Amino acid sequence: MTAKPISFGIMLHGAGGHMNSWKHPGGPADASVNLDFYISQARKAEQAGVAFAFVADGLYINEKSIPHFLNRFEPLTILSALAVATDKIGLAGTISTSYSDPFTVARQLASLDLISGGRAGWNVVTTPLEGSALNYSRDHPDHALRYEIADEYLQVTQGLWDSWDDDAVIRDRETGQFFDPAKLHALNHKGRFFEVAGPLNSPRSKQGQPVIFQAGSSDAGIGLAGKYADAVFTHSPSLEETRAFTNRVKDAAVAHCRRRDDVKIFPGISPIVAETREEAEAKYDRIRNLLSIEEALAYLGRYFDHHDFSQYDLDAPFPDLGEIGRNSFRSTTDRIKADAAAGNLSLREVALAAATPRPNFIGTGAEVAERLIEWIDAGASDGFILGFAVSAEGLEDFIRLVIPELEARGRYSRDLPGETLRDHLGLPRKESRYAQAAGIVAKAG
Amino acid sequence: MTAKPISFGIMLHGAGGHMNSWKHPGGPADASVNLDFYISQARKAEQAGVAFAFVADGLYINEKSIPHFLNRFEPLTILSALAVATDKIGLAGTISTSYSDPFTVARQLASLDLISGGRAGWNVVTTPLEGSALNYSRDHPDHALRYEIADEYLQVTQGLWDSWDDDAVIRDRETGQFFDPAKLHALNHKGRFFEVAGPLNSPRSKQGQPVIFQAGSSDAGIGLAGKYADAVFTHSPSLEETRAFTNRVKDAAVAHCRRRDDVKIFPGISPIVAETREEAEAKYDRIRNLLSIEEALAYLGRYFDHHDFSQYDLDAPFPDLGEIGRNSFRSTTDRIKADAAAGNLSLREVALAAATPRPNFIGTGAEVAERLIEWIDAGASDGFILGFAVSAEGLEDFIRLVIPELEARGRYSRDLPGETLRDHLGLPRKESRYAQAAGIVAKAG
Repeated sequence: MTAKPISFGIMLHGAGGHMNSWKHPGGPADASVNLDFYISQARKAEQAGVAFAFVADGLYINEKSIPHFLNRFEPLTILSALAVATDKIGLAGTISTSYSDPFTVARQLASLDLISGGRAGWNVVTTPLEGSALNYSRDHPDHALRYEIADEYLQVTQGLWDSWDDDAVIRDRETGQFFDPAKLHALNHKGRFFEVAGPLNSPRSKQGQPVIFQAGSSDAGIGLAGKYADAVFTHSPSLEETRAFTNRVKDAAVAHCRRRDDVKIFPGISPIVAETREEAEAKYDRIRNLLSIEEALAYLGRYFDHHDFSQYDLDAPFPDLGEIGRNSFRSTTDRIKADAAAGNLSLREVALAAATPRPNFIGTGAEVAERLIEWIDAGASDGFILGFAVSAEGLEDFIRLVIPELEARGRYSRDLPGETLRDHLGLPRKESRYAQAAGIVAKAG
Repeated sequence: MTAKPISFGIMLHGAGGHMNSWKHPGGPADASVNLDFYISQARKAEQAGVAFAFVADGLYINEKSIPHFLNRFEPLTILSALAVATDKIGLAGTISTSYSDPFTVARQLASLDLISGGRAGWNVVTTPLEGSALNYSRDHPDHALRYEIADEYLQVTQGLWDSWDDDAVIRDRETGQFFDPAKLHALNHKGRFFEVAGPLNSPRSKQGQPVIFQAGSSDAGIGLAGKYADAVFTHSPSLEETRAFTNRVKDAAVAHCRRRDDVKIFPGISPIVAETREEAEAKYDRIRNLLSIEEALAYLGRYFDHHDFSQYDLDAPFPDLGEIGRNSFRSTTDRIKADAAAGNLSLREVALAAATPRPNFIGTGAEVAERLIEWIDAGASDGFILGFAVSAEGLEDFIRLVIPELEARGRYSRDLPGETLRDHLGLPRKESRYAQAAGIVAKAG
């Protein structure tokens, strides 16, 4: 296999990415709180060679929220459960740097990394929805401040993860020596937002440190990704746009003295696959029909601070919203506005497209496989995160119809290349900052 | 079985409760970060009918900490892993109300309760060690303030857990109705320390709400237990003292309009059992010899804000420490001082007794079983938490030698009485405050 192999992650998001996926007969209606379903999806993905499972999160709901996210598992707990129910698949979850303590999060992720044998990943988000502040006794920081907090937060957590050198703990029952004090490092961080002494009461893991995912696509998000991220979860509007984004992130990594290959880009995609193109279109229709226009408007409102779109004429051009939505899902709302303007779309068209976008990977297994290879060979990304509109049907179809086509083309193997998430992503083990510093000294000498 | 059956919990604390248990050949030296060991202990306990596993915690370490707690699992992650590795045993863990957010903790415990099918418990602590503040960018609240925070914190978490009535989520695919808005409750808590709107994005569990454990034994701790606790974890200095404590907690429950039986008391004990009394004494000697006098002094210092006891004459009377230790483990340090004064003990004697106290349950299986029954029949407690000095050996001996003696006396069954932790503790399912309020209205009418 000389051509670049393709790697996948899978979103575990209950019934699916579609707002009304819980209504689809392909899976259980209670999928988002169904442990057996989560385990079954993770195991199927693992057997198919999917590199990691990914659990997103939200810290605020109201009556307008996506129904099957009104009740759902919390990421760290469900990932810890999946660590025992699986053997090789990576386990990544979303945690907000705006509404948590770095010492606690560093510990919980380190513990997950231990429990899973080096398979933990952390999707670092700054939490766009202002509603979260209502559950956390504090004000919601604005966009720029959130990213400044996130930057310092990552310094602290990564520093804590290096508290113990790999060979610091000795446990010699003869001499009674438990550890070597020279290999234990207190952090003593005193910054603008955090004061954290350390050390962490957790060792480094098999992969060194948990994998850092980043998902923001604003300039600040790309900057943070370039500095810290091992992997980036992004959108997939088109091959060209994703490739441009990928290049921006990799440029940002280079600007922080890293290699382009140190950060892997994973656009989220929602493939719909069937035996024939017509059947795939029929599946798409079935998914689109899970939703009424009222529900589509409410879904659109979610990106715009729960703006009430029912006040507008459905068939008039998409309304001018000014600054609404600019402090939350900024890049998404900017894109929606740009698309609406470019296509002179009505509110109805914008809402239906936002709620059930036509996937750019739809067709037969061979067609989808060819398209995936096209993206990889064009340098658009390093892999894909599969966020099926309907989880159960989507994964089953993909494994049955797309994976064999990729295998036949020599671009995929169901055997994961190693044991840790970093292995699966083609990343080296994360060495401790203290080991690295010692290495630099040795070279200079 | 007419006499009251005896119920047990087990501490999962790595190699054991003894400071140098990692040196004992009876178990793995890396027990505190060894997933297979945790799973094996939990499964053995479950098969023996132990009602719950209990994971304590600490938020701060330094070079003087108990060695095998320098690296250990974080409670919520390891308990979530154990939820998948076990079927019936309850899963309780320590989380501090002084260093966490109630919305996050409510979610994580609710998620553990879902994952485990209603087996979650939360040991509510206020964190005595001032060092924790060094890892959390804030000042350490004093003793009284910590308990005021904890009280409001519990109001918030228990309120959030009732966000969704048991029958609020409908998921009717025909009508498209996901939930009944009349059965969803926003909390809208605005208090002195917290403002939390809710609702929680998690349903109630099979047992209604996670079980509340409480472990403080100061007046403030007993007050909090009387108001909120389903179970209390306490010391076991003697039958009489534990019985007096038990009565104080149950009186406090009655003062809060609850029944004496609504709160179950579990003193922690560290039995040492063998085929003969001499062998049990030999086991105790082996454990005591895991420690040097220097280590014993350091262990003692842990309770007294890491006070340096090496400055004193070992064989002079225990020194006058004034207020040292009064803001941390207050009840423990007061007891140590009282015991020293009563027995006119030297520092050496106090340190050795603190580090390796002679257990009040030591002997043959029959002797220990008789003593356990004596405590229960005297009303000293409702059960016991087994915190073996050496985990692996301790549990194995207890199951082999004590459990059969209890069974023979008709005081124990290995069949846990139900499915949830509340079932195991003889507690009814926790009904929602809204259902209770409706019931009162119905009664009044």
